Amino acid sequence: MARTADVDDLVARARKGEPRAVARLITLIENASPQLREVMAALNPLAGRARVIGLTGAPGVGKSTSTNALVRAFRRQDLRVGVLAVDPSSPFTGGALLGDRVRMQDHASDAGVFIRSMASRGHLGGLAWAAPQAIRVLDAAGCDVVLVETVGVGQAEVEIASLADSTIVLVSPGMGDSIQAAKAGILEIADVFVVNKADRDGAQQTVRDLRNMIALAAPEGWKPPIVPTVAVKDEGVADVVQKLDEHLAWMEDSGELNRRRRARARDEIEAIAVTALRERMGDLHGHQRLDVLAEKVLDGSCDPYAAADELVEGLTESG
Amino acid sequence: MARTADVDDLVARARKGEPRAVARLITLIENASPQLREVMAALNPLAGRARVIGLTGAPGVGKSTSTNALVRAFRRQDLRVGVLAVDPSSPFTGGALLGDRVRMQDHASDAGVFIRSMASRGHLGGLAWAAPQAIRVLDAAGCDVVLVETVGVGQAEVEIASLADSTIVLVSPGMGDSIQAAKAGILEIADVFVVNKADRDGAQQTVRDLRNMIALAAPEGWKPPIVPTVAVKDEGVADVVQKLDEHLAWMEDSGELNRRRRARARDEIEAIAVTALRERMGDLHGHQRLDVLAEKVLDGSCDPYAAADELVEGLTESG
Repeated sequence: MARTADVDDLVARARKGEPRAVARLITLIENASPQLREVMAALNPLAGRARVIGLTGAPGVGKSTSTNALVRAFRRQDLRVGVLAVDPSSPFTGGALLGDRVRMQDHASDAGVFIRSMASRGHLGGLAWAAPQAIRVLDAAGCDVVLVETVGVGQAEVEIASLADSTIVLVSPGMGDSIQAAKAGILEIADVFVVNKADRDGAQQTVRDLRNMIALAAPEGWKPPIVPTVAVKDEGVADVVQKLDEHLAWMEDSGELNRRRRARARDEIEAIAVTALRERMGDLHGHQRLDVLAEKVLDGSCDPYAAADELVEGLTESG
Repeated sequence: MARTADVDDLVARARKGEPRAVARLITLIENASPQLREVMAALNPLAGRARVIGLTGAPGVGKSTSTNALVRAFRRQDLRVGVLAVDPSSPFTGGALLGDRVRMQDHASDAGVFIRSMASRGHLGGLAWAAPQAIRVLDAAGCDVVLVETVGVGQAEVEIASLADSTIVLVSPGMGDSIQAAKAGILEIADVFVVNKADRDGAQQTVRDLRNMIALAAPEGWKPPIVPTVAVKDEGVADVVQKLDEHLAWMEDSGELNRRRRARARDEIEAIAVTALRERMGDLHGHQRLDVLAEKVLDGSCDPYAAADELVEGLTESG
C-alpha cells in the first residue's frame, strides 16, 4: 500500500508527463484502487484541456492502423497525444499489454505519445467508471489530444460516444450492409464517418450507403461527413483531421462541446456514486441481506421489486 | 394508463399463455412501465419452472438458424418454448419486430412457441434489468424452455451467461482465430460449444483449436463439450440438446443450478435497486444537483469522487 506521499509523488511525475507514472496511475484505475479518490482530487484541477476523440468500428476495419495514422498526423502539428485502447470484453491486461508493445514500435522513441490499453470488464462500473478517469490522467499529464479507441459493436460503441468530444466511426467496404450498420446504432454516434480501405472494391457503394442513411436520418445541426481513407498509406488522414477540427469548431460555436462535457461529468459522477452504492449493497450485513432476498425471490415469497425496496432501505439506514 | 384490474387481466391471460398478453407484458418491460412492480409481484410465484438456455456468438455464425433448429428439437419433445432475442445495441423495437415476423414464419401456426425480440439499449438498467423480467414473463406463461439469444461480442456475450442456466457459444469455421475467441472471454461463459456450419472447410481445425483452449484453461467441474452442427440441415442439433441435458443434470447434482439461479436473482434485485437509486439521483432537486456537481467537476472546484459523495448524501437525506 502506497502512502499519501507516494501518491503525491506519482501525481507530480505524471504531471510532468513521465510515462511510467502515467502507466502506474492507469493501473490504479484498472485495479479500482482506493487511492483513486486522492489521485483524482489532485489531478482534476489540472485536467480539462485535452480534446477527446473517440474511434470505434467493427473488428477488422483498421482501427489500430487508423489510430496510428491519426497519432502521426497530430504529432506533425506538434501536439502531445494520448491513446487509450479500451476493450470492454477483455479481462486480460496481459493481452492488452502485448498489443501495446506491438503498437508502441511505431512511436517508441517519441516522448510526445503515450499509448495504453485498458481492460474494463469485471469492473463494477465498467467503461463508464474507468474510462473518464483514465482520460483525466492523460489529460492532466499534458496530452493535447486523447484518442479513445474501442473494440466496436454494440454497447461499447455507444458508450465511447459519451466519453468523447468527437466520435469517429470507421467502416470499410464489404464489412456488412447498411442495415447491420443502422442496427448497431452507429448513425447516431458518428460525428465523422471514415470509410477505411477505400482503395478496395465496394468503397464507393459504402460511401453511397452511408450518405443515404444520413440523408434518411436527416440529423439536425451537425451532419456527419464521410471521409475515405487508406490509413495504411496515410491517405485521407489529413482530411479526417480537418473534419475533426471543423466538428470541434462547430461544437464550440453551438455550445455542444459544453453540453457534451457536462453530460460526461454527470455520467462519471453517477458511475462513481452507483459503484459506491453497489458496494454498500453488497456489504450489507456481510453480503447476507442480498442472499436472503435472492432466496425469497426464488421461492416465490417475495417479488424482485419488493426485494429491491428492502435492499435500498437497508442502504439508507446504514448510510 | 391501465388500472390494476387491467394488470390482473393481463397477468391472467399471460398465465394461460395467450401470446398477445405475453407480448404486451414484454412491451411494459421495454417501456420500463411503473406497472411492472405489480406485474412482477403477480408473476413471481408462478415462475421458476422454465429452463433458461443462453445462445450467443459473433454475427454471421448462424444464431437465428440454430435457435430455430433448437426450437424444433424441443417442440419434438412437446415442450413449450419461449425465445427472447436480445439486442443490447438496438434502440429500435421496430427493427426487432421485423426480425420477429421473419422468424415467426417457421413457427407461426405453433401455439407452443413464443418468439419475441427485445431492445434493451437506452434502458437505465440495460440487459441486467430488462432480461430477467422478460424471462419471468415467458416462464410464468408456461414455457418449459426459454432460449435467450443475443447479438454477441463483448459485454452482451458475458451478460447472457449470467441470465441463463446453460450457455451455448456458437462459433463457425473461419470466423476468426482462437486468440480472438479467447479475448472475447467466451471460454469462461460457454457450457456447450457449438461449431456451426461444420460442413465447411476449417471446421475440424476450429474444433481442435477450441479443444486446445479448453485443455489449456483446464476448467474444474464441467468441461464444455464441443458439438459440430449444420443447423440449416438440422444436423447435430439432437446432440446439442443431449449435451444441454447432461449439463442440466450435472448442475442439479453439483448444486450449480441453485448457485446460478441465486446469483441471477441477486443480480436482478441489484439491477432494480440501482435503477431506482439512479432515478432518485436524477430526480434530486429536479435534476439540478447533478448538473451543479458536473459544473464543479468541469471547473476544477470539485473532484468526481467528492461530487459522488455529495450525490449519495443527497440520496440518503431524501430516502
